[in-house]
Amino acid sequence: MTRKPSLGGTEEEREMARWIEGHWKDQGLDEVHLVPYQVLLSYPSPDVPNLVRIIDSNDDKAIWVSAPKAEEPLYAEEDALPDLPFTFNGYAFPGNVTVKMSDVVYVNYGREQDFDFLESEGVDMTGKIIIARYGKIFRANIAEIAEARGAVGVVLFSDPIDYSPEGSSFVYPNSYFMPPSAAPFGTVKLVDGDPLTPFYPATESAFHIPEDEAQIPKVPVQPISPEDAWQILSRMGGEPAPAPSDWQGGLNFTRKADQGFQQKNLKLNLDVNNKNTPTTTYNVIGIIKGSVEPDRYVVLGNHYDAWIFGAVDPHSGTAAMLELSRLLMQLSKETGWRPRRSLVFCAWGAEEYGVVASLEWTEQFEKQLASRAVAYLNVDMAIEGNYTLRTKSAPMLYDIIFEGTKKIPNPNPEEVAGGRTTVYDTWAVRRPDTVQPGLPLMQFIGSGSDYKGFQHNIGIPSMDVRYTHDNVTLGEPMYHTLYETFALVDEIYDRGFLYHKAVTALWGDVAMVLSESKILPYSLEAYADFISRASEDIIKTYGDLIAQRNMTMEFFTEAVANFHKIVKDFTEELKQVDLENPLQVRKVNDQQMMVERAFIDPRGLPGRPEYK
Amino acid sequence: MTRKPSLGGTEEEREMARWIEGHWKDQGLDEVHLVPYQVLLSYPSPDVPNLVRIIDSNDDKAIWVSAPKAEEPLYAEEDALPDLPFTFNGYAFPGNVTVKMSDVVYVNYGREQDFDFLESEGVDMTGKIIIARYGKIFRANIAEIAEARGAVGVVLFSDPIDYSPEGSSFVYPNSYFMPPSAAPFGTVKLVDGDPLTPFYPATESAFHIPEDEAQIPKVPVQPISPEDAWQILSRMGGEPAPAPSDWQGGLNFTRKADQGFQQKNLKLNLDVNNKNTPTTTYNVIGIIKGSVEPDRYVVLGNHYDAWIFGAVDPHSGTAAMLELSRLLMQLSKETGWRPRRSLVFCAWGAEEYGVVASLEWTEQFEKQLASRAVAYLNVDMAIEGNYTLRTKSAPMLYDIIFEGTKKIPNPNPEEVAGGRTTVYDTWAVRRPDTVQPGLPLMQFIGSGSDYKGFQHNIGIPSMDVRYTHDNVTLGEPMYHTLYETFALVDEIYDRGFLYHKAVTALWGDVAMVLSESKILPYSLEAYADFISRASEDIIKTYGDLIAQRNMTMEFFTEAVANFHKIVKDFTEELKQVDLENPLQVRKVNDQQMMVERAFIDPRGLPGRPEYK
Repeated sequence: MTRKPSLGGTEEEREMARWIEGHWKDQGLDEVHLVPYQVLLSYPSPDVPNLVRIIDSNDDKAIWVSAPKAEEPLYAEEDALPDLPFTFNGYAFPGNVTVKMSDVVYVNYGREQDFDFLESEGVDMTGKIIIARYGKIFRANIAEIAEARGAVGVVLFSDPIDYSPEGSSFVYPNSYFMPPSAAPFGTVKLVDGDPLTPFYPATESAFHIPEDEAQIPKVPVQPISPEDAWQILSRMGGEPAPAPSDWQGGLNFTRKADQGFQQKNLKLNLDVNNKNTPTTTYNVIGIIKGSVEPDRYVVLGNHYDAWIFGAVDPHSGTAAMLELSRLLMQLSKETGWRPRRSLVFCAWGAEEYGVVASLEWTEQFEKQLASRAVAYLNVDMAIEGNYTLRTKSAPMLYDIIFEGTKKIPNPNPEEVAGGRTTVYDTWAVRRPDTVQPGLPLMQFIGSGSDYKGFQHNIGIPSMDVRYTHDNVTLGEPMYHTLYETFALVDEIYDRGFLYHKAVTALWGDVAMVLSESKILPYSLEAYADFISRASEDIIKTYGDLIAQRNMTMEFFTEAVANFHKIVKDFTEELKQVDLENPLQVRKVNDQQMMVERAFIDPRGLPGRPEYK
Repeated sequence: MTRKPSLGGTEEEREMARWIEGHWKDQGLDEVHLVPYQVLLSYPSPDVPNLVRIIDSNDDKAIWVSAPKAEEPLYAEEDALPDLPFTFNGYAFPGNVTVKMSDVVYVNYGREQDFDFLESEGVDMTGKIIIARYGKIFRANIAEIAEARGAVGVVLFSDPIDYSPEGSSFVYPNSYFMPPSAAPFGTVKLVDGDPLTPFYPATESAFHIPEDEAQIPKVPVQPISPEDAWQILSRMGGEPAPAPSDWQGGLNFTRKADQGFQQKNLKLNLDVNNKNTPTTTYNVIGIIKGSVEPDRYVVLGNHYDAWIFGAVDPHSGTAAMLELSRLLMQLSKETGWRPRRSLVFCAWGAEEYGVVASLEWTEQFEKQLASRAVAYLNVDMAIEGNYTLRTKSAPMLYDIIFEGTKKIPNPNPEEVAGGRTTVYDTWAVRRPDTVQPGLPLMQFIGSGSDYKGFQHNIGIPSMDVRYTHDNVTLGEPMYHTLYETFALVDEIYDRGFLYHKAVTALWGDVAMVLSESKILPYSLEAYADFISRASEDIIKTYGDLIAQRNMTMEFFTEAVANFHKIVKDFTEELKQVDLENPLQVRKVNDQQMMVERAFIDPRGLPGRPEYK
C-alpha cells in the first residue's frame, strides 16, 4: 500500500480501490462493491512546478527558487520512485503573482488574531503575499482569512520549533521529526465533500454548480519547506518590531517593522500551476451481514487515498481495517459465528481533498444511515506515534471505548514491566483528563476526517482512535510529507507492528460490542454529563453577553436538566426490558440510536447550512 | 361542537380542546395530553368592523356600506348567537385605502393569467383596489399576486354562478347552495404554520422572527358577499370591453373598458381593522398504545378550530374521530383487544389560519414521526355532500383505501336499491378515473389541511377522505361561511348521519388495517405506476423545453424504471419473509415505511425551502 502514491482521483487510487475490493472478496465478505462519484479534484501541473522565486528587479532574474518537490534522501527504497507530484496544496488557485519587497508579510500562524495584530499596527493586507506557519488552525482557514483581508498569495511552511524541536540532526531518518526539506501537502478547500455538488451526492446524474460558484480559494497558496521559508524570512529587513513573543519561531529570524526585504531591489514571485479537474473517485464497501438484525449497521471506515506514500496517513489505518475484516471472516469460517448486526467496512476515496467521497456517500445514503446505523468507527491512522492512545469520540461511545482499552494488552513492554498492563493504564497516566481526574482524556470528535458526514451531518455516534506521540509537537511531524514512508512506520514508530495490533484489537472490540450486544451499551449518562459541562462553558464564556442582550439561558438550562432526568428514567426502564422479546429490545435500542440524531438540524446553522 | 364558534387561539377554542381532552379521558385512552404552541394569529377588531364603502366625493359621505358580518336569517336556533366576529380574512393587513373610481379593477378569479390579460390590455395594477372571485386558486395566492403587481387592496367575493348555480331561491335553508348574504372567511397567509417560527416549533422557548419579516400579506384584503359585490360591480361603467367569455359571472354585469365607476364622483374605500395577535393554541393528543409495536404509529387527526360554527368544516370530521376512538375503546373493554401498533388521535388547533398547530407539532416531533409513523389519516370534513366519496391520498395507501371502500355498506338507500351496495360502487360510477378506466378517481393529496406537515415535510403516507357533493360547484358552497350550521348537516346533507357513519367506518378500517397487519399492505406497485404517469406528464409538458436547454431526462427515466424493478423484486422478497420472525417482519415493514421518506428533501426546493 505504501509502495506508490495513491492520490485521490488518479489511476493509482483506482488501482488501490480494486486491490482492496479484491482483498475483501478473497476474505469472503458477503457483499463487496465500488461506489463511484464524479467530483472536482485538484492537481499540480505534471510539467510546470509550483515555485516561489526571489527576483532581482534590476535584471528580472531569480536569485533563488524554491524546491519543486521535496528532495528525496533515499532513506528507504520505496522513496525512490520517479514521477512524484510537484509540491502543492489541493484546490490552491492557479496564478502567478509578483509583489515588491515591502508587500510580503509574515503573519505568524495566520489566525484572525494574528491578522488583527498586524492591522492594529497599520499593516494593510491588500495586495500582499503572506507567509504563515502551519499548525494552529486548519490551513484552509489561513487561506480564507488571508483572501478575505485582501492578500493576493499565501505561502505556508512548518516551523522547526513545532515539527523538529530537538534540532536539525534529530530528524528523519534518525527520528520521526521533520527534516528541513519537507513541505506538507494538504487541501485548502474549506467545505467538505465535492465542491460542485454541495449537499447532494456527486452521482452520475447530479447537477453540478459552475466552478466559479464553488467554495474554494481564489488566491494562490503554496507550501514550502522550512529551509525554503528561511530563504524568504531571513531576507526580511527593516527595524525589529515589537510582536507578541510567540511570533518568534525556530528559524532564527526577527520580525521586522517594514515587512519588506532588506534588499529593496528584490521581489517575491509566487507561481502556482494547479488545475481543478473533474475525475472519478471510488469508495470500496464490504459488508458482513448481520444474522439477527441485518438492517442495523456498525460502520467501520478509513480512507485509502494518500498525498504521497501515506504510510501513517492513511495506510496504517487501512492496513488495520483489512486485518480486522480478515480476522472476523476467519472467525466466521472457523466457528460459524455471524455478527448480530451488519458490519459495514468502508474504504473511502479522496479524503485528503476535504473528506470528499465519504461525505458524498453519507449524502447519498443519508436516510438509510439515519434510520439504521448504530455507530461509525474510524481509524484514519492506526499510529502516528507510540506514546499513548488518543481518542476522539462522541460521548455516546465513551464507556464502550473505556471498557475496550481495559481489555487490550499494553503494546509497550516497558510500560507492562512498570505495571501498566493495558492500553487504558498508559492512556490514563499519559493523557489524563484534567477536568475529570482519574479518567484518561477523551477528545471531542471534530470534523477532520471521514467521520464528518456521519457524526455531524447525520448524527451517528462516531469515534476515531490511534496511537499517538507525546504532546511536544503540534501534530504528527511527518504528516502529509514525502517522508511518511513504510520505513518511518516499520523502523521508527512501530517495530513489529505491536501498536497497530493494539489499535486493531480496540477497533475490533468496539465494533463487536456494538454488533453483538442485545441492548446497545451506549453511554447516555456520559452524554448528559458532557452536555452539562458544555452548557457551563457556554454560560461562563457568553453569560454576560447573553444577559446584556436581554436573552435568557433559562430554557437551555432546563433542557439540560431535563436530559439528565430522562436518562435516569430511561436507564431504569432499560432494566425492565424483556430480553427475550425482540421488538421490546429493538424499541429501546432505536430510542438510544436516535439520541444523537436529535442534535442534528438538517437546515444547518443560520447562514451556515453545512454545519448541522 | 357546533353550538358556538371555536376560532383558533381564542378562549372558545381552548374550551373545545379541554372538552375533547375530557372525552378521550372518559373513553379511557392510554394517554391524553394538550400540547401548546405560542403562535401569531389574526383577528378582526371586536369593535370596528371591516367595511367596503362607496363614497361620494362631493360630500365625502358613503352612499353604500358593505355588511359588517353576514346577516343572520335564523334558519336554526344555533345561528342566533350574539357576538359573532366581524367578517374578515385571517392575516389580512390592517389598512384604510381609498381610490378613485377608475382605480377599481375586476380581475376575474385573480390568477396570474387574469392579471396578464389585463396588463396586456394596458391596465396597470399599481395603486389599484382589485375585486376578484373566489374559487379557482387559493385566496392567499390572489392576495400575493395582487400585492406583487402593485395593488393596494383586495376585495373577494363568491360568484353565484359557482356557489348558487340553481338560482337565488334554491339556497340555504332550502338547499346547500350559498345565500346572497354569505361571505366566506379564510386565511390569506401563504406559508403554513406559525408565521413567526418558520421551520421550527413555536414552543415556549422558540426564537420568533420580527413580524415585519413574516410571510404574510402587506395589503388589506376583505371578503364580501355576492350581494355586496354586486353593489360595486353594477356601478362599474364605460363601454363594454372584450374579455374572455369566462370572465362573465352570475351577477349580471358586463366588464367595462374604463374599469371605473359610471358615476365619476364616486370613490371606493376599503377599511380593514384586523390585528395580528400572539396567542396560544393547543393540540389534543390521545393515544391507544400498541401491544406488539408500540413504537410504530398510525396517526389519525383533524382540526377542531372553526371560522364560525364549522358544522361541516371541521366538526363533521372531528365528531367522526371522537366516535371512532369511542368505538375502539369499547372494543378494547369488551374483548381485551389492543392494537398491534399505536393509534395516535390528534385534534389540531388553528388549522384555519394555515395549518398552524399541526405543522408546529410535526416540526417539533419530526424525528420521532420520521422514524416511527406508518401513516397519517386525516378527515377534515366527514361530509360536504352526500353524492359520492372523495379521497385524496398518497399512492402508498391506494389499495388499503380501495379495499376499505369495498367493505363499507353504501349509506345511500337508493343506490343500494340500484345494486350499488358499497361505498366503492357509487364512487366508481360517480367519480370514475378517466386515466385508469374502471377505477374510481383517487386525487393526489395537496397541502390544504393538516396532512401538510406529515405528507410533504416528513414523507408520511397520508390520506384525506370525505363524502362530497357532485361536481357542479367549485367547492362546498357554504364553506367557511356563517351558514355552515348543524341544521345544514343534520337537515340537508345527512339526515340520520348515515354518511358520517360510512366515513367513520372507512377511516376506522384503514386505521385498523395499518395497525393490525403484520406486513404493512402498502401499495408499492400503485406508487410505481403513479410515478410513471407523473414522469410521462412531465416529459409531455416540458420535454421540448428540456431538450432546448440541452438537458436530459435520461437519468430520470432510468430511475423510474429502476423503481419499478425494485418494487417487483421487493414484492417477491416479501413472500419469503418468515412471519414468525419479528425482526424479519420489522425489517421489511421499515423498508416500506421509509419509501415515502425517500422523496423528501429536508433542504426543500431551490429557493423554496418550505416545499420539501
